[in-house]
Amino acid sequence: MVPPAQTAGEFDLIRRHFAPLAAHPGALGLRDDAALLRVSPGDELVLTADAQVAGRHFVGDEDPADIAAKLLRTNLSDLAAMGARPLGYLLTTAWTRETGEDWIAAFAAGLGADQNRFGLSLLGGDTVGTDGPLTLSLTALGAVPAGQALRRDGGRPGDRVYVSGAIGDARLGLDLARGTPGRLADLPPPQREELLRRYRRPEPRLALGQALRGHARAAIDVSDGLIADLGHVAEASGLAIALEVEAVPLSDAAAQAVSSGIDPLVLLSGGDDYELAFLAGEEAEDAILQAAAASGTPVARIGVCHAGEGVTLTRDGAAVGLPETGGYRHF
Amino acid sequence: MVPPAQTAGEFDLIRRHFAPLAAHPGALGLRDDAALLRVSPGDELVLTADAQVAGRHFVGDEDPADIAAKLLRTNLSDLAAMGARPLGYLLTTAWTRETGEDWIAAFAAGLGADQNRFGLSLLGGDTVGTDGPLTLSLTALGAVPAGQALRRDGGRPGDRVYVSGAIGDARLGLDLARGTPGRLADLPPPQREELLRRYRRPEPRLALGQALRGHARAAIDVSDGLIADLGHVAEASGLAIALEVEAVPLSDAAAQAVSSGIDPLVLLSGGDDYELAFLAGEEAEDAILQAAAASGTPVARIGVCHAGEGVTLTRDGAAVGLPETGGYRHF
Repeated sequence: MVPPAQTAGEFDLIRRHFAPLAAHPGALGLRDDAALLRVSPGDELVLTADAQVAGRHFVGDEDPADIAAKLLRTNLSDLAAMGARPLGYLLTTAWTRETGEDWIAAFAAGLGADQNRFGLSLLGGDTVGTDGPLTLSLTALGAVPAGQALRRDGGRPGDRVYVSGAIGDARLGLDLARGTPGRLADLPPPQREELLRRYRRPEPRLALGQALRGHARAAIDVSDGLIADLGHVAEASGLAIALEVEAVPLSDAAAQAVSSGIDPLVLLSGGDDYELAFLAGEEAEDAILQAAAASGTPVARIGVCHAGEGVTLTRDGAAVGLPETGGYRHF
Repeated sequence: MVPPAQTAGEFDLIRRHFAPLAAHPGALGLRDDAALLRVSPGDELVLTADAQVAGRHFVGDEDPADIAAKLLRTNLSDLAAMGARPLGYLLTTAWTRETGEDWIAAFAAGLGADQNRFGLSLLGGDTVGTDGPLTLSLTALGAVPAGQALRRDGGRPGDRVYVSGAIGDARLGLDLARGTPGRLADLPPPQREELLRRYRRPEPRLALGQALRGHARAAIDVSDGLIADLGHVAEASGLAIALEVEAVPLSDAAAQAVSSGIDPLVLLSGGDDYELAFLAGEEAEDAILQAAAASGTPVARIGVCHAGEGVTLTRDGAAVGLPETGGYRHF
């Protein structure tokens, strides 16, 4: 309803806190109508966007640098799942009247540290105000050699199923962040810290994703939960996935949580792991292990694909029912 | 705080209303981690993002198709100002509990009509919920022959200043949309409708922008108001712009508003016109007029550049003071 003119105050905030993140020459210092980006011949672009809302995706009282890191990393995880390397990102922010410059400075500093670590640059965006919760939207751009992107729909019956890292830590970290630790209260403080860190600062598996190009036939990043995300791959590839529950890798902290009584299916249904789950033919097993070693990323074989549809679970050889998804309704 | 897992309901809404907009093969049916886009060799990408919030950028009770059109067109206007042709866009939406499927369907239909008209495709995005106002963020991608983008910083002293179309209609349309027509109440209904349309459905000057490549030395789209946006160009180009108030083109409705007592400086300060303002050397005048004719876009010469800084106004040869900007503070 009101004209979206940017005020001097906004220009100053952008100049002070975000222009330093826009070192890429094509960002034009965030002072033009749009940014410019050259794509290497032979590459194709990979594009993804995620929005996060205070009170939904984060509480709001977290360290702003953690909020920035998670926003950037969830998008980078999507690039990793396509086998892409990151190029840059655009950011739109809807700040509230309570969003002070200290908060903005810490948020921008968190973005800056992460963009340096992952090798990309802010290219552009927009800053508006809102009477509702702080809302953030990030569009990430990556590149992949043309035709070599890892997709969800390339799996075949007989393919083996793999996952990187460890599953379920973020689900446990969420309980800790919520202040409802339950059985986790007995974990040693360093393990609780590690679970929180895994929830707040997921590790996008960029090196592994790129190393899997040409070897994996399908891939996805685990954001909705391992079982749900393998279900997406099964549907896209038109096959069934049989998952061996006891083969799914757990961290020491998660293993301890399981031995203290937490159902491992809760971990396999939890979201926010941002590990890579992927399929590859039997003949690619050596290449997969080499890709894991070359990228310094643990990888475990957790199942196999069959003709059919959906995800089935076995535990020590016996079928197990699928857990309630516990999916959260946004509406 | 809660896992951002998408629910079956969301998947269904996306499949029903947004997947049909994602006809581009690289969109992968909105069912993969990211989208793929090949850029023609010799082109570079042009990238822009805008966010809009209900209650700030629109009331919320407008026709959802108008909201969709304005969101897309404001971004296309940024591409136009760079001389780019549109390729595609990503969209993130934060819907409220009150955002019903009828609203979403009408919004998507509006996007669909406009993307067909302007020749681009939905490539990806994200859908979340919010307890605050409806919030939309759109990232648009375009392409321009490498090195030929129109920027804000290429102007030189002596350059002539031009603007497309007519200035100020959107400012008057805003008064009508707000229900505060003032002196506009006496305008004939067709003129009032036209002003509202200009506010709600700006016309991105894509054909003109592309035709200006190689001829204009600097360009911007008029979103903050003609005077403010020429100020941005003057600052980026390191020069002063002398604007002749009586040379600024007005529509019949705006001219009638002026003759009924509205200060023309209000029109030159109003935002949301989404016309192109641009600079070109004296020797390019013929090429500029040809670009205007070839793109079917009226263009008027409205001033000249000098060494110095800032924007000055003259009216019938006499200096006029700059109006209060009336800028809206987002915070």
